[in-house]
Parts: sequence; structure tokens; C-alpha cells
Amino acid sequence: MSDTINLSLNQVRELSESTLISNGFNEQHAQAITDIIYTNQIGDCQSHGLYRLFMCVESIRSGRVNGTSEPTIIDAAPSVVRADANDGISLLALRAAMPLLIKKAKNNGVAALAINRCFHFSALWPEVEMLSTEGLAGMAMLPSHAWVAPAGGTRGLLGTNPFAFSWPRDGQAPFTFDFATSQFARGEIELYRRAGKPLPNGVAIDKDGQPTTDAEAAMDGAMLTFGGHKGSALSLMIELMAGPLIDDLTSKESMEFAEGKPEAPYHGEIILAFDPNLLSGGRVPQNHDRAERLFADVLDQGARLPSQRRQAAQAANQAKGSVEISTALYEDLLKLKQA
Amino acid sequence: MSDTINLSLNQVRELSESTLISNGFNEQHAQAITDIIYTNQIGDCQSHGLYRLFMCVESIRSGRVNGTSEPTIIDAAPSVVRADANDGISLLALRAAMPLLIKKAKNNGVAALAINRCFHFSALWPEVEMLSTEGLAGMAMLPSHAWVAPAGGTRGLLGTNPFAFSWPRDGQAPFTFDFATSQFARGEIELYRRAGKPLPNGVAIDKDGQPTTDAEAAMDGAMLTFGGHKGSALSLMIELMAGPLIDDLTSKESMEFAEGKPEAPYHGEIILAFDPNLLSGGRVPQNHDRAERLFADVLDQGARLPSQRRQAAQAANQAKGSVEISTALYEDLLKLKQA
Repeated sequence: MSDTINLSLNQVRELSESTLISNGFNEQHAQAITDIIYTNQIGDCQSHGLYRLFMCVESIRSGRVNGTSEPTIIDAAPSVVRADANDGISLLALRAAMPLLIKKAKNNGVAALAINRCFHFSALWPEVEMLSTEGLAGMAMLPSHAWVAPAGGTRGLLGTNPFAFSWPRDGQAPFTFDFATSQFARGEIELYRRAGKPLPNGVAIDKDGQPTTDAEAAMDGAMLTFGGHKGSALSLMIELMAGPLIDDLTSKESMEFAEGKPEAPYHGEIILAFDPNLLSGGRVPQNHDRAERLFADVLDQGARLPSQRRQAAQAANQAKGSVEISTALYEDLLKLKQA
Repeated sequence: MSDTINLSLNQVRELSESTLISNGFNEQHAQAITDIIYTNQIGDCQSHGLYRLFMCVESIRSGRVNGTSEPTIIDAAPSVVRADANDGISLLALRAAMPLLIKKAKNNGVAALAINRCFHFSALWPEVEMLSTEGLAGMAMLPSHAWVAPAGGTRGLLGTNPFAFSWPRDGQAPFTFDFATSQFARGEIELYRRAGKPLPNGVAIDKDGQPTTDAEAAMDGAMLTFGGHKGSALSLMIELMAGPLIDDLTSKESMEFAEGKPEAPYHGEIILAFDPNLLSGGRVPQNHDRAERLFADVLDQGARLPSQRRQAAQAANQAKGSVEISTALYEDLLKLKQA
């Protein structure tokens, strides 16, 4: 048996949709989730592609995710859309609310979408690229579980709290980044633990709040944010913006809610949309060129733009019409489908 | 002669206003600038208090800052205010535009203020605290000069690009942070250079793009962002949000414009305002408490909230009615005043 297997792009979609539907998601949820799993998989983002079907299935099997809930879209204010996911996975609410968010941003210059009471398992870059595809700049953030200590602290309080941004570029893939504000992802620590390898310095503390390079001790202790007190401040901002600001859970509340179950975290999300036309006084072409000069100056000095690798993988996999995944993962995925 | 001198709070104001007016700023500009210098000085932010009068005076003496310009406030869209500073210091435009920004945020949920064509010398925290004082959450960012290399790069392109955020708290100082996205401030490198001390690792590269701990070589080379590629991505976002998005200069363009003069940088600024009432569906008290639990959890584990020290100094200096500055600084400041 070969270590990897090629799946056609249709097979990726089909595997995702049928797995989700056989486990109790309705067609709308299954499609909204599959769109995102597909987008990640063709970008070779293995951790957020088909692999995430495990978390989706665990989440619905635990009985807490509602696989058939209809999101409620609320036109809350001239520049605010609120989307209550009603205990569903976030992505159907996102899809349902996105047109109104885009319309508000284009009419008013700036707008926010607050998604509430959702289970969230996905990367944030596809969400902000939905905005840059429409010619808008986009920002998104959300909490997770309280695994990360604030700078100078001794125990987990903050989530891995990702932050994503996307900027539209004519005729080419947008400028996009999407990063966790923790130094490492939770899964990376787990990989070090399994491999019995020491962690780098500055990644974690043990349960007594002391710096540690022992991955086992780190799992019992807390992770650290990237960038010291600056990263910690940003992470606190994300807690506030995607928690109390929009009437939803902090990472600590979300972890308490989960009661240790390995399902997708339950919390809120905030997405901000900015219209370059209204914000620049209608001078979009000149400023598009100005942004392109900035990007060219990054590349000219041998630096990379964030997401370049992923965007190149997307183009390549789309051209060849297939993706490569590990055979072991594929075999395990097949077992997820219910008869 | 004692090393330090006490100035009453009135003397701080008077020294700032008279210095500015004698150098050609009109009363409105002098007051708007003094408000901010005063706020910083009573928070013992020595680098952004009275010390900044040197930069203000250098800027107007160079003939480029307009000390009597009237800002033009443009109601650009339902959620966008644009303020053209018309080559003045940013602070009069900020003061003139702030009421409309606050009104738009409270009516629409989210709003943005773009300040254009301004000279900017001040810290960002007072600007976002103008919003949190009104019960709004605020974010602000701006470029500076191209002294900072992108991650993986070899030369300066990005500014020290500060990012600030403030969150309103009932009956106490707001939660606020304000940090440069460069690892060090430009002035810190200069201090190491003067002291002949080696820089820590990871702060700068030399003119060939190689890591250096030599402050002299760093001044000829470039600074690095905080937090590696994540901080670099954030800094690029700030270039886009406060540059091309609002039809204003990038840090590279701003540095070219300055032609090496030691004046305040000329560029734009974006300030975002968020209304907790409209974004939370009217559930402000519950969510205020939720945010307070988050802050209490930070403090309980021995960590500090950002700005705690500055806010404590503000309270203490206000109570005693005076501030302490170095006598040498005071003597030099007196020389700035024109007869």
C-alpha cells in the first residue's frame, strides 16, 4: 500500500458531504462545512482539510452540535449583522450572513458580523477571503479554550485566539494571513509530546507556572503567546472583541462549557469588513497600485508574503484536478461514514 | 542643581502651550497638542510628554507643518469620517472629527475615522481612550518610517507601526494597550548606540541583511518586527489599513517625503470605534461583568494588565498636582520658546 493516495477534487467534496450527512448534518450544513474543508484541502492545509471531519463528527455524536439548526440572521444596526448559529457549526451562519455583511460594508464603509452560539473548527482565512474576493478588506478573530497564559501569568486563561486579515488584489490571490496568537498550536505541542522531543524555549510553562521544554509538562501547564507581552495584549483584545463585545463566551467560559469533550469549541466570532472605495474617497486604483508596490518591495528583498505557499498549492492542485492525502488518513476517514 | 524638578500640572500646560504658540502654532493647534502632551506627561510617559515639544518645534521650523491649518471634516459615508489635516499636526483633526466618529459608532455599531495628510508625533493610547471614555471599544494604527524589515527580508520597508486598543470599564481606568510592532523602538536602539552596549539578539539586521547586535550597524541596517513572521504580518496589515485603504502614504513613501528631516512623520491614521451596545444586542451589563472576570483572572495569577503602571502614575500625579521631569530636559525646553 502506498503512503499517499490521490483524490480527485470531486472525491474530496463527495467524501466530506457524505460523511457529514451520514452522521446527521443536513444538506445545507454539510455543504457549508464541505466548502471550507475543500478549500483548505486543495491548499494542502492538511490540519484543516478532510482531517477536520473527525472533529465535526465527534461534535455531532456528542449530541451538543445541532446538525440541522437554521441560523437566525439579525439586521442589528446599520453596520452590524448578528448571526445566531443556534448551536450549529459556524459555517452555515457565516454563509447565510455574508451577503448582508458585504452589502453593509459597501454601503456604509465599515461593518461587523457577530456570529454567536456556534461550534467552530475551521481556519479563519477562508472567511476573510470571502471579503477580499468582493473587493473588501477583512479581519476576523475568535477565542478558543483557555490553554494559554497571559504574559507574566502562571496558568491558562486565553485561547490560541487566531487573528486573520485579507486584502483584495486585482487578478491574483489576495494578501492574507491567519495566525494563532499562541506561540505554538495546541496540536504542535502534542506532536512534540508523542515524538518525545523537547520544546523550544518560550513556548510553554508547567503547572507551577515555571518555563518548561517538556511537552508532557506543557500539556498539564499552559502555552505562551507569541511575541511576549505584545502578543498577550493582542490575545486579550481578541477575547474582548469576540467575547464580551458581541455577547459571547471567553475562552475560559468556552472550556468550562466543553467539559473536556474533544468536540469543536463553542463560542462566538467577529468579522470586520472595510470598503476601500468609501474609505479612500473613491481613489481605489491609485491605492491598489500603492499596495502592490508594498508587496513588490517585500518580494524584491527575498521575503515571502504570508499564504504564498498555500495559494500556490491551491493553484497547482486545481490545475491537476486532485489532491494527495495520506493513505492512513483516508482509511480512517472512510470509517467515519455511517452505514 | 537637583537632577529633577517638579512642575505643577498648570505649569506643564503653560509650558507646552506657550512654547507651541511662540513657535507659530495657533491657539487651537497648541491646545490640541498640549492636551496630549499633558496626558502623557502626567502618566510619566517621558518619551511622549513634554519631550515631544522638540519634535513639534522642529516640525514647524522646517516649514512643512502648517501650524494654523484648519482640518476639513468629511462625512464620507454612514460609518466613515474622513479628516484632512491639511498638513497640520494630527491632533486638531482628531479632536475635530472625534464627535462625529463617536456618533456614527453609537448609531451604526461600528465606524472608522481616517485622518489624512497629517504630521504625527504622539502615542496612540490617548486616541483610543477618547473612545473608551465614551463607552466604546477603540482600535488605532498608523505607519511611520521604513526602518523595519519584513520577516525574511534584508532591508527597511515597514514602519515601527504602532497598534493600540482600548476597552471601557465602569468607574475605573480602561483596559488599554499601545505597542510598536517593531521589536524595539527606534529611540531604544539609539540609546544602546550611545551607551556602546550590544543589542539583544533578534532586534536588528545590518545593511547586508545579516543579524547584528551592534547598535551602530543596526542604525545603518534595519530593525526587526516583534514576534517573527506574525508580527511582520501585522505590520503589513497596518501599512495597508492606515495607508492604501485610506488613500495615504506607506512608511516607505512617508520616509521619502521626509527627506531625512528630523520632523514628525507625515502620513495617515485609521481609528476604529465599536459600540458594545449594538454589537451585544443590548446586553452591556452582563458582558461588562464578563470582561471584568477576564481581567480579574489576569490579575489573580500575578500578571499585569497593560497600561497599569501608566494609569497608576496618572492617578498619583493628579492627586499630588505635579509631575517630576529632569532638570536638564526642563532647561532645554525653556530654550525652545521664542521671544
